[in-house]
Amino acid sequence: MSDATNDLQQRAAALDSADPLAKHRELFALDDVETVYLDGNSLGALPRHVPERIADVITREWGELRIRSWDESGWWTAPERIGERIAPLIGAGAGQVVVGDSTSVNVFKAVVGAARLAPESRDEILVDATTFPTDGYIAESAARMTGRRAVPVAPGDLPAALGPRTAAVLVNHVDYRTGRLHDLPGLTAAAHEAGALAVWDLCHSAGALPVGLDAHGVDFAVGCTYKYLNGGPGSPAYLYVAERHQAAFDSPLPGWNSHTDPFGMTPGYTPADGAVRGRVGTPDILSMLALEAALDVWEGVSVEDVREKSLALTDFFLECVDAYVPRGRVTSVTPAGHAERGSQVSLRCEDGAETGDVMRELIARGVVGDFRRPDVLRFGFTPLYVGFADAERAARVLGEVLVGS
Amino acid sequence: MSDATNDLQQRAAALDSADPLAKHRELFALDDVETVYLDGNSLGALPRHVPERIADVITREWGELRIRSWDESGWWTAPERIGERIAPLIGAGAGQVVVGDSTSVNVFKAVVGAARLAPESRDEILVDATTFPTDGYIAESAARMTGRRAVPVAPGDLPAALGPRTAAVLVNHVDYRTGRLHDLPGLTAAAHEAGALAVWDLCHSAGALPVGLDAHGVDFAVGCTYKYLNGGPGSPAYLYVAERHQAAFDSPLPGWNSHTDPFGMTPGYTPADGAVRGRVGTPDILSMLALEAALDVWEGVSVEDVREKSLALTDFFLECVDAYVPRGRVTSVTPAGHAERGSQVSLRCEDGAETGDVMRELIARGVVGDFRRPDVLRFGFTPLYVGFADAERAARVLGEVLVGS
Repeated sequence: MSDATNDLQQRAAALDSADPLAKHRELFALDDVETVYLDGNSLGALPRHVPERIADVITREWGELRIRSWDESGWWTAPERIGERIAPLIGAGAGQVVVGDSTSVNVFKAVVGAARLAPESRDEILVDATTFPTDGYIAESAARMTGRRAVPVAPGDLPAALGPRTAAVLVNHVDYRTGRLHDLPGLTAAAHEAGALAVWDLCHSAGALPVGLDAHGVDFAVGCTYKYLNGGPGSPAYLYVAERHQAAFDSPLPGWNSHTDPFGMTPGYTPADGAVRGRVGTPDILSMLALEAALDVWEGVSVEDVREKSLALTDFFLECVDAYVPRGRVTSVTPAGHAERGSQVSLRCEDGAETGDVMRELIARGVVGDFRRPDVLRFGFTPLYVGFADAERAARVLGEVLVGS
Repeated sequence: MSDATNDLQQRAAALDSADPLAKHRELFALDDVETVYLDGNSLGALPRHVPERIADVITREWGELRIRSWDESGWWTAPERIGERIAPLIGAGAGQVVVGDSTSVNVFKAVVGAARLAPESRDEILVDATTFPTDGYIAESAARMTGRRAVPVAPGDLPAALGPRTAAVLVNHVDYRTGRLHDLPGLTAAAHEAGALAVWDLCHSAGALPVGLDAHGVDFAVGCTYKYLNGGPGSPAYLYVAERHQAAFDSPLPGWNSHTDPFGMTPGYTPADGAVRGRVGTPDILSMLALEAALDVWEGVSVEDVREKSLALTDFFLECVDAYVPRGRVTSVTPAGHAERGSQVSLRCEDGAETGDVMRELIARGVVGDFRRPDVLRFGFTPLYVGFADAERAARVLGEVLVGS
């Protein structure tokens, strides 16, 4: 073992033993010590207590109580109840977040909702051109269906592109590909100065860093729950509608769950007040209650502490990559500055290395990240269960793979 | 015991022992013999093998394989794979059904999709005025967002209301309140004769009776899976797009899952061919795979046999109600004619009886149905697990409750 390796491993051990969040790893089913799981930015690990909870939901609540569970087991109110659990993680006060549907469907609600709050003369919806593709596709549809046009703009160019024609902007808080963190307070303020509304996609930031929706005056936000919130595969997404917009929020998907008296079953639609207006149809209870249980791991955790560890982890990983990977083989496309970094590190493979092959070899050696075509290796750092020794090992194995040893 | 009771109980026993579907009850968790479960038209009972399957999905597929399960456990292709399992139950050939999202969201896709296939001069969407309310609310939104207007029409008046301005009609196959079965072949043909498209909601018919989507030339259909298909609370709905419309189907929710190359992650949207075009965002895997497992109970079952038993059950229940309930206390609002009856019986309480109180007392005595304001008691008959003795007992207890004994 080289001196550099020895030094980095000793530092990792020291950092792990000083880490106040280290004990949270025990809450997750991560018993395969031969694996370093760095894909929590795609699918969070399983919280250990979720299987028992869902067994009870299925066997007793569905199997025995059956229809009674809609009331007695609290199924009916799950979307708003779980919304309240997520709210503090994204800096939202009570009554503004509701869970249900996919992120794409919520982007549709949010962008149409925002567009309808703008005068018709504001006929453009600016869309982060680097966003996860579904946001762009859906924003295009929302624009078309509200008589607007969607205009893709690189996030850095957004302030200059805002103007009297802008109805709303849709921005991803953290770029899924590069891990770049966008300036939510600044872009929201710029949108407001231009008289436009700001819609944020929090898929890659919620649960990894403070968002501060209320503090920064965000208008609408959406996010998924299966990444840093560990809700399980395809767990339902959420919609945030700032309280000041709720009374005028005009959902394009006014399903019966958003009616003020859903069991009145009246032919006329009268929307409910509050976050519930963002509901649509019958909630997918199994997926939803797995998410609810998964959120228990956040008890007593501050998002600020999570952020501090996240930055320390990605700093340390980048340092280890620098030490272990021969110069010129990879380049980080994740910003070095903390203010611009999410909770993942993305490395571009240079000199023609096939990213897919590199990642497959990494996975075969127990380091699980993923890749995005054509040339980006992604490593997600979930502070609740990833440690510094994991970061060191991932970088070391990457170095071994790239030199072909 | 009166002679009438004795006779009906003997007939029930004979009918049950001659019932070729009776053995299917064993497939469900219905061990509380003190309960007659007649609310399968709202939430189907739990198939006995589902908990074990979902325990494996959570513990092994999510907990151990994690991100690899999107490929290795077949998560990614679940929406279309499960669509193929539902297809034969609703008379659809391969490649036309996809599972995902709620019924409300699928109504939106279907009605917008149908409207966009019509010339702009066809500016009306006729909506079954007796449909489950969410269909009306969503159709109104779909109409508004495609430059049309939604026109509520009683199903019986639909043929006369169809005309050169009709883009599409949205009809519920079975009325959720009365249990009336509408004439799918006739109304579909009438719509086509008028140059309009037919969109059917199968929530209360799929799994209870033959639908024949292909045979009758239906254009679009949607349905839920948690009633007669026993998929679990809020299990995902499905969308049927007839093959001849798929190439032109222009979804209002073009999420990345419907892209021809979703992992290409290109900024431009190019829709996939086939049923997959109806997908939107990441599927809710836990709810979806519970549904997939639940569909196993259909192996070797013909929907024609289910229909035959369903009609025999509701006939027998009506006969028992006639024998046990004092004349004038309830009136069936479910049509007597087989061609107009779904798989539920709805009884209107007369002489001011409070329907909610009656149902609460029934449930307290082990007969689980539900009620719909202001005055309808609903009893759903799921032929896979409800027997003739159940029907006799339900009617007998109803008689006891209504005479206050």
